Amino acid sequence: MNIVDIINKKRVKEELTKEELEYAFNGYLNNYVKDYQMASLLMAICINGMSERETFDLVDIFIKSGDTLDLSFLPGIKVDKHSTGGIGDKITLIIGPIVASCGVVVPKMSGRGLGYTGGTIDKLESIKGFNVSLSEDEFLNALKKVGFAVTGQTSNLCPLDKVIYALRDVTGTTSSIPLIATSIMAKKIAGGADKILIDIKCGKGALITNLEEAKKLKTLMEKIGNFYNRETICEISDMNTPLGTNIGNSLEVLEAIEVLKGKTGPLTDLAIKIASEMISLSKEIPLNEAKSLVLKSLQEGLAYKKFQEFVENQGGDLNSLEISKHKEIIKSPKKGKVISINALNIGKLSCSLGAGRINKEDKIDYGVGIVLNKLVGDYVEVNDDLFTLYKKDNNKINLNLEDYYEIK
Amino acid sequence: MNIVDIINKKRVKEELTKEELEYAFNGYLNNYVKDYQMASLLMAICINGMSERETFDLVDIFIKSGDTLDLSFLPGIKVDKHSTGGIGDKITLIIGPIVASCGVVVPKMSGRGLGYTGGTIDKLESIKGFNVSLSEDEFLNALKKVGFAVTGQTSNLCPLDKVIYALRDVTGTTSSIPLIATSIMAKKIAGGADKILIDIKCGKGALITNLEEAKKLKTLMEKIGNFYNRETICEISDMNTPLGTNIGNSLEVLEAIEVLKGKTGPLTDLAIKIASEMISLSKEIPLNEAKSLVLKSLQEGLAYKKFQEFVENQGGDLNSLEISKHKEIIKSPKKGKVISINALNIGKLSCSLGAGRINKEDKIDYGVGIVLNKLVGDYVEVNDDLFTLYKKDNNKINLNLEDYYEIK
Repeated sequence: MNIVDIINKKRVKEELTKEELEYAFNGYLNNYVKDYQMASLLMAICINGMSERETFDLVDIFIKSGDTLDLSFLPGIKVDKHSTGGIGDKITLIIGPIVASCGVVVPKMSGRGLGYTGGTIDKLESIKGFNVSLSEDEFLNALKKVGFAVTGQTSNLCPLDKVIYALRDVTGTTSSIPLIATSIMAKKIAGGADKILIDIKCGKGALITNLEEAKKLKTLMEKIGNFYNRETICEISDMNTPLGTNIGNSLEVLEAIEVLKGKTGPLTDLAIKIASEMISLSKEIPLNEAKSLVLKSLQEGLAYKKFQEFVENQGGDLNSLEISKHKEIIKSPKKGKVISINALNIGKLSCSLGAGRINKEDKIDYGVGIVLNKLVGDYVEVNDDLFTLYKKDNNKINLNLEDYYEIK
Repeated sequence: MNIVDIINKKRVKEELTKEELEYAFNGYLNNYVKDYQMASLLMAICINGMSERETFDLVDIFIKSGDTLDLSFLPGIKVDKHSTGGIGDKITLIIGPIVASCGVVVPKMSGRGLGYTGGTIDKLESIKGFNVSLSEDEFLNALKKVGFAVTGQTSNLCPLDKVIYALRDVTGTTSSIPLIATSIMAKKIAGGADKILIDIKCGKGALITNLEEAKKLKTLMEKIGNFYNRETICEISDMNTPLGTNIGNSLEVLEAIEVLKGKTGPLTDLAIKIASEMISLSKEIPLNEAKSLVLKSLQEGLAYKKFQEFVENQGGDLNSLEISKHKEIIKSPKKGKVISINALNIGKLSCSLGAGRINKEDKIDYGVGIVLNKLVGDYVEVNDDLFTLYKKDNNKINLNLEDYYEIK
């Protein structure tokens, strides 16, 4: 077999055999296919697509590139919830404790953020002492004890995904539906979950901006799940507007706590919806029954208690959460109604304040970020607070308000 | 500017600005765009194409990446003839002396062969002492003295083409019409010719196998030539069958000599046609007048004399030409008519005998190759010689005759 022949085949839109996919992708992992050759193949896949058969095969190749986790000794049906990522998405920190407090184990392997959307691991690291690098044993023990644990991806789970993801990021090949589906589903399946629940974020502030593409991704991931005997449900949720009010690491943990303590709004609604679906999938009970359990857990403070237990068990000190003292409040120059808040631009702004990484080496400032004081649909008067920046220092930020808030 | 944004733009089939093309290609030459990024961009160009405007701009970027040659001090209109390459194509060695003997200067910068199609430089190196690495001064002096000179590409002519060509070769991105046109035309224009004549080889044994593609390439190259004020004429000629009877380095030089000495056939016909066109373009005379000059030069032996002069001037000793003593004759197992000879397979066979390079580092054996004893249309009896292999040693070659000759 020859990598140039394989690339040429995909260039003219022919289907690759499993052996050809193995040769190319395992060859890249083992260094006999070069990064420029894989980049060329990835671009051909991006433009010319992959068949379902090719995608199922590639998922298998990704899974077999490393170890798989066995969660069968944990009680019940394990449901893994994943979000494709968006601005202000701290759902995992809310639903994990809720679902665990209802007696369903939530094993969560998570990533760091790259680009404008943050990663759960980064958010948790804003809590002093919190250990995000559990060994496999520590992870499994935490699950047995608390029912909810979060760890960075163990190094030998889908190693092929790691190298391909990094290459896609720098070669303009991130937007391929089959490649996105392969990356997510291979990790979920290798991670040992029995059922998979995926929150596909769609809109200005998400990887997928177009609803048609989101629907294609939903269908493809559900098919992959079925093919591998893991019931998979995908929800498509809006990411034109940031999720909740807080963007930034400590700020998002604090908002998760507020929700667990009873704050209402669109973020709470989405969290209740996803938590109910997870419980319904795991306990195999109707959705409305699952929802009653969720509401009860929130009302009785069981979810927040579980959150405290989770943080403590992984060594974190909740009292350590700090937000920057350097505030700047952006006020409304006019009277009107908030028509939209641009999630992408809010994400970029938060990132530029130091809350995210542009390059892999960048260091995150946990205390910086943005709090939205007005949400979509709110009425504002002249000089009302629109949003608050939490900054590294007192330097004034120059911004064009219309890039962030549309008021009419 | 950001290379990932540029790649993404081409991925979704948008037109790149000249500044974006400069950023990407000059960035690659200067190492701030990585090879995996350029590979991804080249694949996007291969699949999504380039507009004429983008192609004209890219030609300019290629030309300006290095030096240009000034041939204006040489008398007359300089016409550069180029072939896109095929099996047994030794046309340059025939038409150079013919055209020069008719008083038209033929400056020829040529390449080495990679893959199954040989390079003129390799063929000339089969002549002991022949210097293919002339300095710019030596090249220009040779042209003044003899009227025909061949040299390897000077190192600073279109350096961008060299690195892009090498990358395309290993990333399955060789077949893009705009990239092929850019590569050829940038070198021709930088080489200083006033007019350009291109022989586009099309068929099994050529880079371009499809007539529609060949026509697109013809149109695009003629447009590029017009845009840069260099009259450009492209001929499309068949490369399903090898050109002439001899394939291999010394063997091809010997066949060129035979043609210059009067041998007739399809190779001679094509050489006369191309030489006439060059003279017609340079002297601005009708084609039939030019053809009379060509025929006269051949009949009076002036062309062969010019060839001797050319070889001697570049230090070569024609008496040194040697072909291997290890012959193997392939005989016909049946009676019938030769329907076709597979140029690609003959090329591969010649290459495997040692006449060409598979990898850049491979060393060529100048004395090996193939002589076709029967051509398309010939009638054969059982046991007639079909073709003769000239080999490195006496080891028998295993081959399936039907891969090479179709006899019915």
